[in-house]
Amino acid sequence: MNFDAKLDVALARLHDEGRYRTFIDIERKKGHYPHAIWTTPEGEEKDITVWCGNDYLGMGQHPVVLDAMHAALDATGAGSGGTRNISGTTVYHKRLEAELSDLHGKEEALLFTSAYIANDATLSTLPRLFPGLIIYSDSLNHASMIEGIRRNGGEKRIFKHNDLDDLRRIMAADNPDAPKLIAFESVYSMDGDFAPIEAICDLADEFGALTYIDEVHAVGMYGPRGGGIAERYGLAHRVDIINGTLAKAFGVMGGYIAASAKMCDAVRSYAPGFIFTTSIPPAVAAGAAASVAHLKTDQNLRDEQQTQAKILKTRLRGLGLPIIDHGSHIVPLIVGDPVHTQKLSNMLLQEHGMYVQPINFPTVPRGTERLRFTPSPVHGPKEMDALVKALDSLWSHCALNRAELAG
Amino acid sequence: MNFDAKLDVALARLHDEGRYRTFIDIERKKGHYPHAIWTTPEGEEKDITVWCGNDYLGMGQHPVVLDAMHAALDATGAGSGGTRNISGTTVYHKRLEAELSDLHGKEEALLFTSAYIANDATLSTLPRLFPGLIIYSDSLNHASMIEGIRRNGGEKRIFKHNDLDDLRRIMAADNPDAPKLIAFESVYSMDGDFAPIEAICDLADEFGALTYIDEVHAVGMYGPRGGGIAERYGLAHRVDIINGTLAKAFGVMGGYIAASAKMCDAVRSYAPGFIFTTSIPPAVAAGAAASVAHLKTDQNLRDEQQTQAKILKTRLRGLGLPIIDHGSHIVPLIVGDPVHTQKLSNMLLQEHGMYVQPINFPTVPRGTERLRFTPSPVHGPKEMDALVKALDSLWSHCALNRAELAG
Ligand SMILES: Cc1ncc(COP(=O)(O)O)c(C=O)c1O
Ligand SMILES: Cc1ncc(COP(=O)(O)O)c(C=O)c1O
Repeated sequence: MNFDAKLDVALARLHDEGRYRTFIDIERKKGHYPHAIWTTPEGEEKDITVWCGNDYLGMGQHPVVLDAMHAALDATGAGSGGTRNISGTTVYHKRLEAELSDLHGKEEALLFTSAYIANDATLSTLPRLFPGLIIYSDSLNHASMIEGIRRNGGEKRIFKHNDLDDLRRIMAADNPDAPKLIAFESVYSMDGDFAPIEAICDLADEFGALTYIDEVHAVGMYGPRGGGIAERYGLAHRVDIINGTLAKAFGVMGGYIAASAKMCDAVRSYAPGFIFTTSIPPAVAAGAAASVAHLKTDQNLRDEQQTQAKILKTRLRGLGLPIIDHGSHIVPLIVGDPVHTQKLSNMLLQEHGMYVQPINFPTVPRGTERLRFTPSPVHGPKEMDALVKALDSLWSHCALNRAELAG
Repeated sequence: MNFDAKLDVALARLHDEGRYRTFIDIERKKGHYPHAIWTTPEGEEKDITVWCGNDYLGMGQHPVVLDAMHAALDATGAGSGGTRNISGTTVYHKRLEAELSDLHGKEEALLFTSAYIANDATLSTLPRLFPGLIIYSDSLNHASMIEGIRRNGGEKRIFKHNDLDDLRRIMAADNPDAPKLIAFESVYSMDGDFAPIEAICDLADEFGALTYIDEVHAVGMYGPRGGGIAERYGLAHRVDIINGTLAKAFGVMGGYIAASAKMCDAVRSYAPGFIFTTSIPPAVAAGAAASVAHLKTDQNLRDEQQTQAKILKTRLRGLGLPIIDHGSHIVPLIVGDPVHTQKLSNMLLQEHGMYVQPINFPTVPRGTERLRFTPSPVHGPKEMDALVKALDSLWSHCALNRAELAG
């Protein structure tokens, strides 16, 4: 058995399709983000501006977060030293869970090492709690939800993205007595479009189904206290399980679900992905808790972020560049070809010192390859100006289409 | 559909079997570990000694680790702000991967958010890289390996724990041309016994199989540079993929595999659990790298830890208490019943201020419920003395058997 030859085949496939990923090595400078140092493959250091981070509000360099982390390191040390059950539950973890259940107006919250594992572990455990469960999954759901839904081979149905008619048709075709769950996201991170949460909850009520929402790209960002899109529309109480991350707008790391006390207790007790892994470091929990608490009141930061996104979209649209605009904070610029996207990204980085990662299949459908910009309150007018000018000139230079691909 | 009633059933099952888990809320005091503060369910604070942590060497409070974390927080901030591919690769992550590949003498290492996800993501991705792969899995493998092996429904065979004859018999029965992989651990954490690594590698050679070892409870602890049991016996080059954690002996958080450059590249490129999640915070990577580097030379700490384990075992054995001893650093004391184990644990905590979590099914087989002690260099003679006396008196008080259950 020649294992190496098989690895070559697997890797060649990615190279051939132009979607082999190379990682850019960057180091953010605290207090200067979005500025960072890029270490080139040749070992040279260059100043760059990061335009594709998911630290949407710059909380990763906010003093309340860093102070909390330093303090926890000093008080308690580095790692938690155990799984949640075996010496790895601390006041820091409990405080963070209390912040999160309060954020979403739920009885409890349950912390995982990431939102990836929160999705995967929860969605794969629910069929064990509700035997025969059928999961209805939006076709554009994130990989972590897909992995969780597929894991234990439970019943699943895929409905067309945000298509209520399709969802109703599929649900109506199933046994009315089977336990059901609808799984979807609130903001889809690659197009920046929103789910029709209320209509989905209505449908869930009609069919007696549970609802599961991934608010990973919305928590901290939307709603008067940063509780996400469900909070913004006063719908959190209608969603049974809310999933969120502490690694994007909250600027640290970790993931969670918020739900009823019983639901959290059952997932806590049955999900291997929760039980059999070391809990997050107390300092990480402390930083995340400080960030969640801070964003419950700092509406300013949310407003500034939305303003930045609007300005960038308006200016790119003014130049006829094919952006997608659904009114969210995400600014996708469609290129439509993996090779062009990579080339644009390379030129932005090398010639203009601007870093935006190309987004290719399978993260987005083929033919919709894109650059995805995430402007934030810490991107100043100078950076914005430079980006818009660079894109304008590159677009002309590469003779790319304007406007026609815009959504 | 009454979902709450189903949750009640699932939770009642655990209560009935005496294996419903309640988490103890503890806060370690940096520099004073194994001493910690226990917040009782009533909100009272009590001083306790932790005897069941997996921060085996006390690295979680070591100045080299904490200094590195403080420095990284100051230099670069809290979270990485992205997945490895999208702005989340930093010099800290690269440095840590370089430390780890060097530690194991492998071409490369690949960092995950935990060893749980490293196992799960790698083992579920290998069948995609090697179509038709059959995975031979030790019957006592950790939940994270089991989850990974089961995930994509690939072919798997379970062999009796550490039983080479059984493994050979099962392998010989399979198609000689099928790609094969043997997955096992080096130190099994609940009994503290070792795998016959060399014999397994011989068998793998005979059948042309790959080998995958989980060294989670051995890295930092065994081998002249902390490279684990494979390093100790000069066998690392014979194992294709080595899995380890940064959350136990290294005292921080995160997990990894170390393997050939090609293998790491393929897993990096294909494993959703690696690709679609935020990378660990730079400060966590910095702390872990400092810990790995430090333990490459601090043989003292490893020796002290082994001495502590030997002393505790000798003393408990002297009292006729039924410990298991395979010569590793783990000290399991068999109680053999979930209710008694819980009671002993409660009494140790409440009456003696000593914290050791009961270990029940499914973590260990029914009938082998136990207390699992993890003495470390930071447990002094006074703490050891107090523990031995407390166990002696509780054993008498509860009229438990001595010796006969010992392994
Ligand atoms: C054998 C084994 N492998 C893997 C893991 C997972 O490691 P981590 O805590 O880094 O997820 C554990 C325990 O947590 C373990 O005991
Ligand atoms: C929609 C969605 N859900 C979940 C995740 C996983 O979150 P985390 O980075 O906390 O694992 C991501 C991205 O990382 C995401 O985009």
